[in-house]
Amino acid sequence: MTRKISILGSTGSIGKQTLEIVGEHPEKFKVVGLAVMQSIDELEAQIRKFQPKIVAVFDKEKAKTLAARVSSNVKISSGIEGLIEVATYHEAELVLNAVVGSIGLLPTLEAVKSKKTVALANKETLVAAGELVMKECHKNNVKLLPVDSEHSAVFQCLNGEKMNDISKIILTASGGPFREWSYEEIEKATFKEALKHPNWNMGQKISIDSATLMNKGLEVIEAKWLFHVDVDKIEVIIHPQSIIHSMIELKDFSIIAQLGVPNMKLPIQYALSYPERVEGGVTRLDFKTMNNLTFIEPDVERFPCLALAYKAMKIGGTMPCVLNAANEMLVDYYLKSKISFYDIPRYIERVMEVHQAFSYSTAEELQMLEQWVRSWIVNELR
Amino acid sequence: MTRKISILGSTGSIGKQTLEIVGEHPEKFKVVGLAVMQSIDELEAQIRKFQPKIVAVFDKEKAKTLAARVSSNVKISSGIEGLIEVATYHEAELVLNAVVGSIGLLPTLEAVKSKKTVALANKETLVAAGELVMKECHKNNVKLLPVDSEHSAVFQCLNGEKMNDISKIILTASGGPFREWSYEEIEKATFKEALKHPNWNMGQKISIDSATLMNKGLEVIEAKWLFHVDVDKIEVIIHPQSIIHSMIELKDFSIIAQLGVPNMKLPIQYALSYPERVEGGVTRLDFKTMNNLTFIEPDVERFPCLALAYKAMKIGGTMPCVLNAANEMLVDYYLKSKISFYDIPRYIERVMEVHQAFSYSTAEELQMLEQWVRSWIVNELR
Repeated sequence: MTRKISILGSTGSIGKQTLEIVGEHPEKFKVVGLAVMQSIDELEAQIRKFQPKIVAVFDKEKAKTLAARVSSNVKISSGIEGLIEVATYHEAELVLNAVVGSIGLLPTLEAVKSKKTVALANKETLVAAGELVMKECHKNNVKLLPVDSEHSAVFQCLNGEKMNDISKIILTASGGPFREWSYEEIEKATFKEALKHPNWNMGQKISIDSATLMNKGLEVIEAKWLFHVDVDKIEVIIHPQSIIHSMIELKDFSIIAQLGVPNMKLPIQYALSYPERVEGGVTRLDFKTMNNLTFIEPDVERFPCLALAYKAMKIGGTMPCVLNAANEMLVDYYLKSKISFYDIPRYIERVMEVHQAFSYSTAEELQMLEQWVRSWIVNELR
Repeated sequence: MTRKISILGSTGSIGKQTLEIVGEHPEKFKVVGLAVMQSIDELEAQIRKFQPKIVAVFDKEKAKTLAARVSSNVKISSGIEGLIEVATYHEAELVLNAVVGSIGLLPTLEAVKSKKTVALANKETLVAAGELVMKECHKNNVKLLPVDSEHSAVFQCLNGEKMNDISKIILTASGGPFREWSYEEIEKATFKEALKHPNWNMGQKISIDSATLMNKGLEVIEAKWLFHVDVDKIEVIIHPQSIIHSMIELKDFSIIAQLGVPNMKLPIQYALSYPERVEGGVTRLDFKTMNNLTFIEPDVERFPCLALAYKAMKIGGTMPCVLNAANEMLVDYYLKSKISFYDIPRYIERVMEVHQAFSYSTAEELQMLEQWVRSWIVNELR
């Protein structure tokens, strides 16, 4: 049986690895839809190779340019409507959402409403709107499969266990490029230094989030929603080798862990093939050549973003959405050298102090809130 | 629901820990039968505390002595018939077999024929007669639950996975007390030094088996039968901290591991409560205080027993039974200072050379073979 999939964000790091897997297993997976923000040259090559039925380019001008260059066999849409069209395309059985940032929310929600299985690499969706997304999943009896290596690990560890038996989820973190840097050194870190992740080769936004440990904070929130576990039962531990990808602790204090080489193809492939497993395109882990696995408590003095994420989740309601929107914007500013490294947590904390969290019920409320966060930050930084 | 259990070997290390667990969870577990080899003083105290319906003492004289000391409310049997009577007692739903050595075979077989769930701590049963035992389990649709920490780990990792997806089983070994000793030092090791296991507090036989690594060899054979995996798919890795209790590798090269403090109460309790999990009587594993986990390839030069076990299993048929019977006797001799440490593998290798392996079909054939192994060794060592 060939599984038909749509990929949102097909020219990003996760999207490209997903297409590699599809290319390695043409008998198992078939691409029917692709969507990108603006990289039409790469998308054009992907269209020729994978022959999807529909593609979308968020940037409307670029969508037009592309339309002039490819055959009329493929439908080309644009804007957020285009992303949604790819996410809900009738032939797609599984939608892999790997766009970056909260723009992934509406396509995810619509895919869920169309009863597609969603493989989620876009963690911001659950951070900003976990309650809403999970409610829709429940209502439509839709499976949300994690693509993040940590959540895929937890998901694999949970196989065959009962949720009631889980006493703790332990997310591992590499610690990022600044793990051993002092506060003073980190304070002066340039975005180029922040982009040098020791174990994983990833996109820019997530690389910066790894350097601040906000990535782990977002993952805590994501895990809360994916696995229906209270945030105080989710623990983060620094494990610099990134071999144990995460763990669960059961109520008898038995711990189940998932391990592997640090290669995103493993969790991506598992999300695509679940509940089956497919012979691996990754290297085998060789314990005979492995020196040691170490574990360190995370330092929230040097990495305040982690504590901010826990705080936002404990407050609940709209606060995680505010945290996430502020982070998205501030990371972008940092990448443009407009602010310093510690300005990221500094302004997130301030906007969280100003915002009065409330219960939301629609994506529109969250989008309006994100607008407010952005203007607040623009104003502060003026 | 209270689960009614019989314990064979109730005064040994595993037996006593099993009773501790029963004592901690009287609403979940009730002892109906107990059997020991000869320790009637301890058994008497256990009878008063746990009030079983039936007990057995292998030593017939000691059984009589005990009968004179306890009330007539409890039935007292003796000999191998007594062990079998406890193992097949009509009220028992689960039989935990923790006797040491191949004497555990007949009670296991009879328990299986009586359709009892068997929790197996007596690994010699599967080593000597794995084919026969598994055939009976299959025929009677009976579950064999592992109690060894390694096999319990594999069993927990397999939860929710398909056997077809398993590419490898990785059994971890502490390496025993002689892990860092040279060949020359080990050669002169006394049994008292061999009994000092770094991580686990166990009985004498298994402690010596851990020092020779024969214990891991027996576990490889046990794993082969329990999980229907070819022996060349079972790997042993030295992991001195005994935190990862074992692992499975799936065909996509994802590895699932089970971790915990090195305390036998965890696997025993899981075997008793399976498929449920019960709140733990063991300490929580704390990654924040854990320095590192290391892995080393086992050295079959210094620990030839491991290679002998693989060899016996590859030859198959009666050879593992010969290996096991020889090892049992030689460990006993070593504990009595009659032979040196390396005489254990030396004489196992010799008897394996002499024996022509054949296909067996009954327990009686194996028992006759064990007799032959014993007389052969007696003769050689004369």
